Amino acid sequence: MSPVNSPMRVQATDADSQPERTPQLEALYRNFEQQLLIPLWTEIGELMPPHPASTALPHLWRWKNLLPAAEQAGELVPVGRGGERRAIALANPGLGGQPFATPTLWAAIQYLNPMEDAPVHRHTQNAFRFVVEGEGVWTVVNGDPVAMRRGDFLPQAGWHWHGHHNRSASAMAWIDGLDIPFQHYTDAAFFEFGPDEVDTRQAPERSRSERLWAHPGLRPLTRLGPTPATPLLAYRWEHTDHALSEQLALEAGGDPVTVEPGHAAVRYTNPTTGGDVLPTLRTEFHRLAPHTATAAHREVGSSVFQVFDGTGQVSVGEARWTVERGDLFVVPSWQPLTVETESGLDLFRFSDAPIFERLHLDRSHQEGIHA
Amino acid sequence: MSPVNSPMRVQATDADSQPERTPQLEALYRNFEQQLLIPLWTEIGELMPPHPASTALPHLWRWKNLLPAAEQAGELVPVGRGGERRAIALANPGLGGQPFATPTLWAAIQYLNPMEDAPVHRHTQNAFRFVVEGEGVWTVVNGDPVAMRRGDFLPQAGWHWHGHHNRSASAMAWIDGLDIPFQHYTDAAFFEFGPDEVDTRQAPERSRSERLWAHPGLRPLTRLGPTPATPLLAYRWEHTDHALSEQLALEAGGDPVTVEPGHAAVRYTNPTTGGDVLPTLRTEFHRLAPHTATAAHREVGSSVFQVFDGTGQVSVGEARWTVERGDLFVVPSWQPLTVETESGLDLFRFSDAPIFERLHLDRSHQEGIHA
Amino acid sequence: MSPVNSPMRVQATDADSQPERTPQLEALYRNFEQQLLIPLWTEIGELMPPHPASTALPHLWRWKNLLPAAEQAGELVPVGRGGERRAIALANPGLGGQPFATPTLWAAIQYLNPMEDAPVHRHTQNAFRFVVEGEGVWTVVNGDPVAMRRGDFLPQAGWHWHGHHNRSASAMAWIDGLDIPFQHYTDAAFFEFGPDEVDTRQAPERSRSERLWAHPGLRPLTRLGPTPATPLLAYRWEHTDHALSEQLALEAGGDPVTVEPGHAAVRYTNPTTGGDVLPTLRTEFHRLAPHTATAAHREVGSSVFQVFDGTGQVSVGEARWTVERGDLFVVPSWQPLTVETESGLDLFRFSDAPIFERLHLDRSHQEGIHA
Amino acid sequence: MSPVNSPMRVQATDADSQPERTPQLEALYRNFEQQLLIPLWTEIGELMPPHPASTALPHLWRWKNLLPAAEQAGELVPVGRGGERRAIALANPGLGGQPFATPTLWAAIQYLNPMEDAPVHRHTQNAFRFVVEGEGVWTVVNGDPVAMRRGDFLPQAGWHWHGHHNRSASAMAWIDGLDIPFQHYTDAAFFEFGPDEVDTRQAPERSRSERLWAHPGLRPLTRLGPTPATPLLAYRWEHTDHALSEQLALEAGGDPVTVEPGHAAVRYTNPTTGGDVLPTLRTEFHRLAPHTATAAHREVGSSVFQVFDGTGQVSVGEARWTVERGDLFVVPSWQPLTVETESGLDLFRFSDAPIFERLHLDRSHQEGIHA
Repeated sequence: MSPVNSPMRVQATDADSQPERTPQLEALYRNFEQQLLIPLWTEIGELMPPHPASTALPHLWRWKNLLPAAEQAGELVPVGRGGERRAIALANPGLGGQPFATPTLWAAIQYLNPMEDAPVHRHTQNAFRFVVEGEGVWTVVNGDPVAMRRGDFLPQAGWHWHGHHNRSASAMAWIDGLDIPFQHYTDAAFFEFGPDEVDTRQAPERSRSERLWAHPGLRPLTRLGPTPATPLLAYRWEHTDHALSEQLALEAGGDPVTVEPGHAAVRYTNPTTGGDVLPTLRTEFHRLAPHTATAAHREVGSSVFQVFDGTGQVSVGEARWTVERGDLFVVPSWQPLTVETESGLDLFRFSDAPIFERLHLDRSHQEGIHA
Repeated sequence: MSPVNSPMRVQATDADSQPERTPQLEALYRNFEQQLLIPLWTEIGELMPPHPASTALPHLWRWKNLLPAAEQAGELVPVGRGGERRAIALANPGLGGQPFATPTLWAAIQYLNPMEDAPVHRHTQNAFRFVVEGEGVWTVVNGDPVAMRRGDFLPQAGWHWHGHHNRSASAMAWIDGLDIPFQHYTDAAFFEFGPDEVDTRQAPERSRSERLWAHPGLRPLTRLGPTPATPLLAYRWEHTDHALSEQLALEAGGDPVTVEPGHAAVRYTNPTTGGDVLPTLRTEFHRLAPHTATAAHREVGSSVFQVFDGTGQVSVGEARWTVERGDLFVVPSWQPLTVETESGLDLFRFSDAPIFERLHLDRSHQEGIHA
Repeated sequence: MSPVNSPMRVQATDADSQPERTPQLEALYRNFEQQLLIPLWTEIGELMPPHPASTALPHLWRWKNLLPAAEQAGELVPVGRGGERRAIALANPGLGGQPFATPTLWAAIQYLNPMEDAPVHRHTQNAFRFVVEGEGVWTVVNGDPVAMRRGDFLPQAGWHWHGHHNRSASAMAWIDGLDIPFQHYTDAAFFEFGPDEVDTRQAPERSRSERLWAHPGLRPLTRLGPTPATPLLAYRWEHTDHALSEQLALEAGGDPVTVEPGHAAVRYTNPTTGGDVLPTLRTEFHRLAPHTATAAHREVGSSVFQVFDGTGQVSVGEARWTVERGDLFVVPSWQPLTVETESGLDLFRFSDAPIFERLHLDRSHQEGIHA
Repeated sequence: MSPVNSPMRVQATDADSQPERTPQLEALYRNFEQQLLIPLWTEIGELMPPHPASTALPHLWRWKNLLPAAEQAGELVPVGRGGERRAIALANPGLGGQPFATPTLWAAIQYLNPMEDAPVHRHTQNAFRFVVEGEGVWTVVNGDPVAMRRGDFLPQAGWHWHGHHNRSASAMAWIDGLDIPFQHYTDAAFFEFGPDEVDTRQAPERSRSERLWAHPGLRPLTRLGPTPATPLLAYRWEHTDHALSEQLALEAGGDPVTVEPGHAAVRYTNPTTGGDVLPTLRTEFHRLAPHTATAAHREVGSSVFQVFDGTGQVSVGEARWTVERGDLFVVPSWQPLTVETESGLDLFRFSDAPIFERLHLDRSHQEGIHA
């Protein structure tokens, strides 16, 4: 990662502001180097740009390429202790070959063969799974088996034990999102191995967490008080789909409940706080009705989107793509995003927004309106 | 209300601690009286008891008496502007003839004839409705018609416009709970008349608030941030019933998710915070499995319970009753409560607990364990 | 207290809105009475007024009368276990003979003879002392002796052990403020006797709490996290006086830091939260420069003021008084207050505002601006 | 920065856990590379270590070398628009030549010649100054000139306009701390130029912010509510020194108010919240009495210390140094720190702890006690 030389950087400092390179100054700079010192005045343009100028680039990964790669890995690479997961990460072309979708976010496709297990471990990294197609795998979280099916969102808070097992005759692929790059950069991560096999191979329709927590507006009296991460381990597609349909129906009836015309959206929340499901990750689902175009929007922090259904045109900064089911794309910090669709488009999104909001560093901008 | 003379008060002060009533002292006391002064040393026993010693009494009102009284009012008393509601309040026998169930809580039966309307108004008092039987009335909250049916809990936050209309051929009765006594005593209440007729006579299955908010763990992106009161205007019986059944089923499977053996319970919460639905009122639903007895429990603050289904034996302090569907009883502050049932018992409860928790005055005690 | 008949109440209900008193209706009302039921429609005007209409009255107690009454009590009434304190409470003329300054607030003058002790106890009621003149007494809070001198504000959170001792050759009087009426009405109060004598007769200049906590913006590393009440047991006059002088000096220099022209004010705060010192009580000090008049202000909740220095004219609702050092006056809920002074005026104030803010019931109004 | 190859990393993955490198697997890996995909199973050891294993190294910079380097810069490098500041940053030897003390923290010595100005700008990066020696400079924050003197801590919240002016005949050096690396990595930073000259060359003893805010436990009534960063712009040495002396005196009197025997410490706090002064930075001052040794302590997140006075021995991980006035050293995440002194030691410290606490990623460990 060599952001200093990046042509994308907006330079606040130009050469004119630099002192003339006299022999004395050269000597001073050599002295600095020996002492492990670096002057601000030569670096300020790169370090303190007028606005965020990420080295991360807008990029698209196509599902029709990703899935075959994962399937091949399913043939060639076993899952087991040490490697832990058959997960293949999106590596942003602006991040110097690191397996990071953005400076803070990890996004990967994970693949499990029929009757295969992934061993149990825990880590401080916050995680989730999102399923764009297929079913048959249960993720077992602290002993609670949680079915994974198309459209389901399955949060996995830091430091919970978890493994997966595929109880079906078909392989299954899904998307993992984590804050690995953030915790890696800030040196916050802990990791611990659990048993090599999952605690249970039960395959119930509904997890215990859902039976306890998935009742709208109701809490068990024995589980009061806020928890940093959501206790609900599955947000089922039927609920997400229904919530989005209702928003569009209410809008059609004259109730301005959508983000903008034709654009319904829900945020997955922690029922104990009403806030984000995980301390570092925000997750949302967006539905664009046919013939909808969004206003250009930029914000501090980065996002990864996956197309759940439909087709559309996406532009991020200078990039422009036509997207379809399963495609994943990245929106770096402060890059403007617009989406439009003729036939309708369903999008899953995750971002690092809670980091910036909790540190009072959030800022956003929509079509000339500065918030 | 003359609590000074109440024989129920635990006296911290006894006569021995009082100074001898000399003529000089008598003169001083007359001087005090003229100046509107009262010494602490003569009042401290009543004012500062060892523990809460409410003048409110445990009391039971039977549904089989309440409902006929409401029906008679339905014949004799019109509903309209000025009187506002055909509501009949429970008057605690210890509170000097005031229409208060406890010092902080109002509980009333409200009754609406077929095709009748209650006019629109708003007030700072927080309110809710709970339906023990019947259906056919819609409460219209800020223009949103909300159906009321057996088992539904319908919060109504302070300062929201609301009226009711009965669209059916049957009369309907339900329970109102409010913080009228608290706001009356503390001089916090505002009230405003709205139109004499409700804004709409629509009678939809689901309110707009439910269509927007009743999706577990999902929030509309346009309605983020905490609100003091819940935006969800109906908590439907099917969800409450399901949540309680699941708790008992999980307990049967070895998961200790209940309050105590055989005792399932949910709290109605504000999805934007995970906390109580209303700033001053806590509302819960409790289900006792057959052959269950609760441990004696006391807490600061008062409660009103309504039996939703089943039968049981309730003891509050010295009082003991056999209760059945629709019966309402009052638990004054710090009075011990126990409930037992042979055949199973479903109980709705509301209390003033948020007042004490938010002011750090909450305290509770269960079977010798002091919390 | 019989507010139903009070002529002061603004009636939302008039006779016209009442149903005609037929024999059947009379029979129904008798039935209600037997069943301990009270209709809303006959009470709503009193219970749900258009705005707060307190039965508490504006009233003034003069220091020149209060102090001699306390001195006489000092001669005639001993201080000891049972009576606990030689405190004489202000009894609002609108509150039916109860020793309450307002429905929520207790205000009393307390008096301790030379070398006298007040025994140790604790109670859940939140308390403070404010000293308008004199010195020589130490209040001992959980074993920490805290000197009391003119201008000092000394909070005393609920459930802390405390006693007082007078180490001087002079008697001393001061003001106690507590939430006794609030906790009495809501049945929240606990009380416990401690030793008959204070733990220590030490008389240090500064309490241990001040040595640990009275450093602006600094916290001991061993006492992190918020506490419900302030850990600082003395707010010294020198700091209050200095803060107010600085506000007026900054205003004179063109910095609009005052409440309104010529009106400086500080709030006593809990350094662990930045909020009110006590969960139920707000305390402030106001300084009016010479030739200052305040805008009329009303708010939900009640206040007690004590004149610390200077003279002025005060109006509360219909009442109007010229006030001087030591005088105490009461402002009931929603009554408009204005103060003016020719020569300058220093005012200590306490109120129940945190109760209303924490329950989202606060509202205020200043000169036609509705907030 | 190439942490993948770092020998310091604790590897959770060993070669045994990797699949055999068959031609097919090689082909798959080439396919991955072309698609910008990276498998987790080859990276997990580096990305998900058992505990934080920072590439940042413990390091010491000596004041006796730093100050002359800054003085030379004072001769050779002008201060002005574009370069903005004569600040020289500590570059951690483990961070690949970036001007970062740790992955999140910037630490620099800044130097201003007699009568010199630094131009006005603002940025979202949170900053502070700490003065180990000298005086004569005022930092002007949003128009408020704040004197800087030995021992003073001067916070500078993000997005406040600020410049500096030296009103004295002597040059002055001080330490700047910022969250530049954190905001750089996460792409959160905005920057804006202000006037080339400071708004005012006034040089008052006390800033307006101090006159309004530096009164213990008192807030102006016009500035209520929490603010993300402290409104107090100077924390003066006299208060810090006094607070620390009192802690040691209280400890000597038997009151266990210190962190550990002989170890007093205060945290600089935001008086509107009681929490950290800045959303991303924690700042503290520690005083070790003579003959004191601290217990080994490790925590998630990194710190920079500056010796304010005295001498002592410091060990960080494998490193061990004797330190004296002005010396700066770095403690990377999860490296154990111990300090001991014969003659007494005063230490200023700043860290990124609020980032981890607000994201629920904080963890610490002291001598076998795991918290």
